[in-house]
Amino acid sequence: MKKPLAPDRPHSANDLAERVLAGDVRAAARLISLAENEPAQIRSPLQKLFPHTGKAHIIGITGAPGVGKSTLVDQLVERLRSRGQSVGIIAVDPTSPFTGGAILADRLRMQRHGTDSGVFIRSMATRGRLGGLARATSDGVTVMEALGKEVIILETVGVGQDEVEVAKYAQTTVVILAPGLGDEVQAMKAGIMEIGDCFVVNKADREGADRAVSQIQSILALKELGEGDWSPPVLRTVATTGDGLEELVGTIDRHLDHFTATGEMERFRLLKSRADFMSVLEETLSQYVLEEMLSDGALERIVESIASREVDPYTAAEEILARLQA
Amino acid sequence: MKKPLAPDRPHSANDLAERVLAGDVRAAARLISLAENEPAQIRSPLQKLFPHTGKAHIIGITGAPGVGKSTLVDQLVERLRSRGQSVGIIAVDPTSPFTGGAILADRLRMQRHGTDSGVFIRSMATRGRLGGLARATSDGVTVMEALGKEVIILETVGVGQDEVEVAKYAQTTVVILAPGLGDEVQAMKAGIMEIGDCFVVNKADREGADRAVSQIQSILALKELGEGDWSPPVLRTVATTGDGLEELVGTIDRHLDHFTATGEMERFRLLKSRADFMSVLEETLSQYVLEEMLSDGALERIVESIASREVDPYTAAEEILARLQA
Repeated sequence: MKKPLAPDRPHSANDLAERVLAGDVRAAARLISLAENEPAQIRSPLQKLFPHTGKAHIIGITGAPGVGKSTLVDQLVERLRSRGQSVGIIAVDPTSPFTGGAILADRLRMQRHGTDSGVFIRSMATRGRLGGLARATSDGVTVMEALGKEVIILETVGVGQDEVEVAKYAQTTVVILAPGLGDEVQAMKAGIMEIGDCFVVNKADREGADRAVSQIQSILALKELGEGDWSPPVLRTVATTGDGLEELVGTIDRHLDHFTATGEMERFRLLKSRADFMSVLEETLSQYVLEEMLSDGALERIVESIASREVDPYTAAEEILARLQA
Repeated sequence: MKKPLAPDRPHSANDLAERVLAGDVRAAARLISLAENEPAQIRSPLQKLFPHTGKAHIIGITGAPGVGKSTLVDQLVERLRSRGQSVGIIAVDPTSPFTGGAILADRLRMQRHGTDSGVFIRSMATRGRLGGLARATSDGVTVMEALGKEVIILETVGVGQDEVEVAKYAQTTVVILAPGLGDEVQAMKAGIMEIGDCFVVNKADREGADRAVSQIQSILALKELGEGDWSPPVLRTVATTGDGLEELVGTIDRHLDHFTATGEMERFRLLKSRADFMSVLEETLSQYVLEEMLSDGALERIVESIASREVDPYTAAEEILARLQA
């Protein structure tokens, strides 16, 4: 007679943490999938991984579709690898409600770095997680760090609210543009000034590169810089040939040095920790209320009375808070 | 001797609700500002307004910068006004961290409909509100409805995660594109299929309009439609001349009829009520914890111990939940 099996999930989730710490890439991939789709499952493994994190250099790279972002990231990774750094890439694509495209892109790109165990690429196209995309991305960074990645690249599309959120998790943010996207520069104006530590005009061999560079410079000139503040440079690259890549790597290095020397790294750690805590707290409280207080149709009854205007959402939420404390 | 004054804020916030119900546009503008910046102030007025809401037709209009969105919305508003409907417009711009641009755009557009008391335009470029942009937008819709607006247009930029969120608050979503933005069609592919009830190729007098229409149609052909499902049409407009606008208005009307007849309206009300409740609940719980449990430096102490890896954010959040119940 067979012995009854222990429940598989909890055991395997904790097991995953051990395997990630031992450098198991497949366990890391599985844990990131759980972070996207079943966040309740990852609390315990993330608790185990957390003490082993906080040391990686996190680089945010953002740009609209078509600017050559993936090629540039591939080139950057090659240079980081050639000097011996292990690299994790999280490609965040909030515009895609389906993961099919993201997974396909992963596979294509994995083929390139596929034989290199020092590179780990993962796409995220998270929807529906209570804590949102930023929460899932942060958990992804934790997993990558625990896996031993020294540099983590967060690749995002565009400069929407999501990208600004994700940029909070990067120490150095690189904004990529391409010539002939003048309208876009206008549209990105405000966001750019706020989040970019370095600007890259890729496809710099094309017509309009000079204009793009001077447009960006004139926007950056509006930024008020104090004594000793980092002044974001505007670089030119041709990702397909690798032109300008050495300069980009040098700029990223210089920014990290500046970030550390000026005490900004310490402020960053506190801000990131605060953002992590607040979003985990929101998720924890909501999950508890949903699972422990609003199961068995209670949620549906509240929703129906809101829909029929018998109660308003604010009063309904206050009643939950009162019950939670009772 | 003067009598001590009652605290000004609570009184004036409740007063705002009365004034909004009486049709006071300036009170509505003030309340929407509070929704963006001081959400704690609007709970009580929104509780008063809520029973008077739920009847407006909410139309989401989304498109990238440069497709002629504002001009098209202006034309649409003119036609809705000419048949006697009162209209509210909420222009959601999550890409702009600064409100300066949004406010300027408001003023320019208000000049056009400025003498028409049946149109109320408001921009939102919310950041930092705990419940996020979707929460502030939903509150804005509540205020517009309580003000007596029969049609509310939610104008958003692009099709990122934010726009998909905001689209949940619209019964009819119109996606606007322009010729020559083929790459963008590709990039928007997945999001488009999911949220669009009607597609508009604006600037249809320009080269490439036919190709844009057939590109969109070929993407839409991938969508699996059941018996009696709404099949999103692809229209052509020239917003600057008004060409195609009558057809757009007719399509929006037909979609509303279909939405009501098939029972989708009822499902929409429940989904919107659920989204409202969940986001208000998250905000209520977080606000309570921040104000009542984590004031006087307690939050900072937790953040510091997370930054120094003494505790992980999951354990810290669970401790708060336990204290909340104690």
